[in-house]
Amino acid sequence: MRSIVDKVIAIDAMGGDNAPVEIVKGSVEAIGVFGDTKIMLVGPEKLLKSELSKYSFDKNKIEIVNATEVIGFDEAPTHAIRRKKDSSLVVGLKLVKEGRAGAFVSAGSTGAILTGGTFLIGRIQGIERPAIATLIPNLHGETLLIDSGANVDCKPEYLLQFAVMGSVYAENVLGVKNPRVGLVNIGSEKEKGNTLTFAAYELLEASGLNFSGNTEAKEIPLGAIDVAVCDAFVGNVILKYSEGFAKALLAMIKKELLSGLLSKIGALLSAGAFKRLKKNFDPSEVGGAAFLGLNGLVMKAHGSSDARAIKNAVKQCRLFIENDIVAKIEKELLKEK
Amino acid sequence: MRSIVDKVIAIDAMGGDNAPVEIVKGSVEAIGVFGDTKIMLVGPEKLLKSELSKYSFDKNKIEIVNATEVIGFDEAPTHAIRRKKDSSLVVGLKLVKEGRAGAFVSAGSTGAILTGGTFLIGRIQGIERPAIATLIPNLHGETLLIDSGANVDCKPEYLLQFAVMGSVYAENVLGVKNPRVGLVNIGSEKEKGNTLTFAAYELLEASGLNFSGNTEAKEIPLGAIDVAVCDAFVGNVILKYSEGFAKALLAMIKKELLSGLLSKIGALLSAGAFKRLKKNFDPSEVGGAAFLGLNGLVMKAHGSSDARAIKNAVKQCRLFIENDIVAKIEKELLKEK
Repeated sequence: MRSIVDKVIAIDAMGGDNAPVEIVKGSVEAIGVFGDTKIMLVGPEKLLKSELSKYSFDKNKIEIVNATEVIGFDEAPTHAIRRKKDSSLVVGLKLVKEGRAGAFVSAGSTGAILTGGTFLIGRIQGIERPAIATLIPNLHGETLLIDSGANVDCKPEYLLQFAVMGSVYAENVLGVKNPRVGLVNIGSEKEKGNTLTFAAYELLEASGLNFSGNTEAKEIPLGAIDVAVCDAFVGNVILKYSEGFAKALLAMIKKELLSGLLSKIGALLSAGAFKRLKKNFDPSEVGGAAFLGLNGLVMKAHGSSDARAIKNAVKQCRLFIENDIVAKIEKELLKEK
Repeated sequence: MRSIVDKVIAIDAMGGDNAPVEIVKGSVEAIGVFGDTKIMLVGPEKLLKSELSKYSFDKNKIEIVNATEVIGFDEAPTHAIRRKKDSSLVVGLKLVKEGRAGAFVSAGSTGAILTGGTFLIGRIQGIERPAIATLIPNLHGETLLIDSGANVDCKPEYLLQFAVMGSVYAENVLGVKNPRVGLVNIGSEKEKGNTLTFAAYELLEASGLNFSGNTEAKEIPLGAIDVAVCDAFVGNVILKYSEGFAKALLAMIKKELLSGLLSKIGALLSAGAFKRLKKNFDPSEVGGAAFLGLNGLVMKAHGSSDARAIKNAVKQCRLFIENDIVAKIEKELLKEK
């Protein structure tokens, strides 16, 4: 049963490159769009009051929760979480822990959010390592990439748990029936891979998941699977490589198109199509990557999040809460025991 | 000093999806372009004679070396190399080992070529593991990705050796002065990474190489480094992901361009630009990936190689031989001891 807390989303007003301006703006936009959502904006009270004074909005729907410190991108996570107890990140995570908010969104340092989330909110019982699940575009829609940022050195059991969590996400938030789970690997045959994937294959094959076997990385952008399972080193390489590759490819296209008169006219006529395409690769469209495995909902927004990204992260949180993802992960995990 | 053998390139006529037709055609084209090159075509004599009879060429420049067996893509490498002693792959590698050819080119199974190369030709003294070096396109040119296919489980020392070999390749074959070597990692700070990269960083920092430090995967397509060092699991993911991503992105562009009348006309006008762009991502353009660390030159051509790819692989071999890469790797390795 949904409680009143489920409608409350805490937001780190000081996290990310565009804080607090865009974060505050996005929060105001979110309460405009999602009528029953209330937002707790976490950060220095005076500063946030002044930012909020720029807008007219329903004052009952945004509450400022004072936090005087900020954790930067360059700070060592464990040290920062321990030392800065009055940071927007620590105060925000505690709102979830204490049951005052149903979710926490931050565009701050991934490492600090993960460390803070694990220390302050804790893990779902049975989860060995929380993981980050990020949606990446493919030819036909989206693929959920897990782990895309938390655990660079993994045991096979972690990968099985990532697969379980990713399946719950894909099925319940994305609405994919019986999601296809692929193990990212260097070949499709069972005997391919490194020590980690070899052992993980056995676990995934014996699981109750819809396991598609080993998946070569080239199959991911082509949309062959719904959930791509890997350690966070590989996941980060995929995420970052595609970011750079899309940028490079679009720059090459631009250069080629501007190199001749005919193609220059062609480029002008196709401008709308390219604009739509760029939107496909815009992280603001999704809003947030979820930290799965924590005993509460924590959403990481891209470091360069603008107001729209924050609004979309709130939307993601609502979907997670409505679909009871944390409880469902706990339940599915028991099945794999 | 160059010897007569350096002009002789052995080619596996039976390796790859388009063997023997395209391989034979590419060999004939190669001797037409590279005047002083001689080719030993390895495969079933009768079949190759019949293929060669389609063309008119200088008969002194192509010699058939009979080999009655073929190793397929689905065969376990070690088993196949041991059992099929009269395969085009084993016979071809022996031509290099015995000093009858200066290089061997095959579009066959990577695993079998690697295993065969290590068993039959052996490693350069001091090399712990041979690695595969592949050129991938970036915004400003090319990046050498090493290891892109041989060693999925690596020790830090292997990565240092990959870096040394990659630097020799980039400097001598690609003509890059003082090539920038990057360690593929999940962040640019020194303390980022997994157990492997953490230790490899220390070795690379202490080496005499032009080490650019940790390189996020997004920097590779943007052209930030000349040599990207990683284990073959990560390397394969990069190689394959970019293959699928380019395919998906171009399909998305096509779809977007065809979705409106204006952009449809635009697409027509820009067709030439896209054709040039596609060429950038065509593996046939480069021809071959080099197995570095073997005590002789072995070049892997893409499995789907056509005649042009084979011709370009021969061109690559010539560059390697002219620049004495095997000897230079051995020399550089001694410096890092």
